[in-house]
Amino acid sequence: MTHTHRSIHFCPHCGTPVQSQLRHGEYRPTCPSCGWIYFPDPKVAAAVLVRKDGQVLLTQRSYEPDQGKWALPAGFMNAFEDPEKAACRECLEETGLEVAVTGLLTVVSGREHPEGADMVLVYEGQVTGGTLKAGDDAADARFFNLEKLPPLAFRATRIVLGKE
Amino acid sequence: MTHTHRSIHFCPHCGTPVQSQLRHGEYRPTCPSCGWIYFPDPKVAAAVLVRKDGQVLLTQRSYEPDQGKWALPAGFMNAFEDPEKAACRECLEETGLEVAVTGLLTVVSGREHPEGADMVLVYEGQVTGGTLKAGDDAADARFFNLEKLPPLAFRATRIVLGKE
Repeated sequence: MTHTHRSIHFCPHCGTPVQSQLRHGEYRPTCPSCGWIYFPDPKVAAAVLVRKDGQVLLTQRSYEPDQGKWALPAGFMNAFEDPEKAACRECLEETGLEVAVTGLLTVVSGREHPEGADMVLVYEGQVTGGTLKAGDDAADARFFNLEKLPPLAFRATRIVLGKE
Repeated sequence: MTHTHRSIHFCPHCGTPVQSQLRHGEYRPTCPSCGWIYFPDPKVAAAVLVRKDGQVLLTQRSYEPDQGKWALPAGFMNAFEDPEKAACRECLEETGLEVAVTGLLTVVSGREHPEGADMVLVYEGQVTGGTLKAGDDAADARFFNLEKLPPLAFRATRIVLGKE
């Protein structure tokens, strides 16, 4: 579920209007018919830092926020998905490059905007195949010299690249 | 939202029956009235490893799964919550001890049971206050010698304690 601040009024399973009931220490939207309880799960993004010959792989954002700026290949992780695989999947979709994760670099937490992630897991990866070509919601995808970086989107990208 | 495999039939905001529409690369439950799209976010748990004099802090589970077994103080992270603070909050609720996080130890991914977490962020922490007393959903809370550990619940706990 997207975690906007919109209120939960109906049970998504049976359509019954929910009631606010004390469950697990808090008042939570609860279905009086089927027992469903709304727990707001965090949104999690997975990103990958790919270095090659002193360069780093970045994607240019097609949409707001930060449209036109550049960020690590990244995207939202789905329920039941492995975060490493989510990072590789997003990298392939956005850059055409297949990567293998070599380690977890850091976890950057804190939501930057209402539709953003509560945390970004940043992995390190190496290219194992594919051909560089922007796709999905990336307007462009390129390797940049670390000394000549373009305008950067998002805190996680800036932190990992030493710009914040 | 809890990520059971139950189907989404109604918009939780306006109560309209949802339709399966192609959105962001997949067919997703979508509200034809208000535009809401269902994205299944992962469930994330945060845990803390607290060592003291060669001992480690564990809590005994009150409920299934693994009722009666022992695990690191841990719990689900809420949307908009900082994962470090979630780990400290759960530790305080379950053990009565205030802890300060000193670093991220590891991220253990993979859902062990239908209502479990897709990943567990395991932090290291040190006691800064409070009095050891089991609470919330912990039946007991104690420090154990690493050589005399009780039966352990959950992969993340076993991995971190070198038992898997």
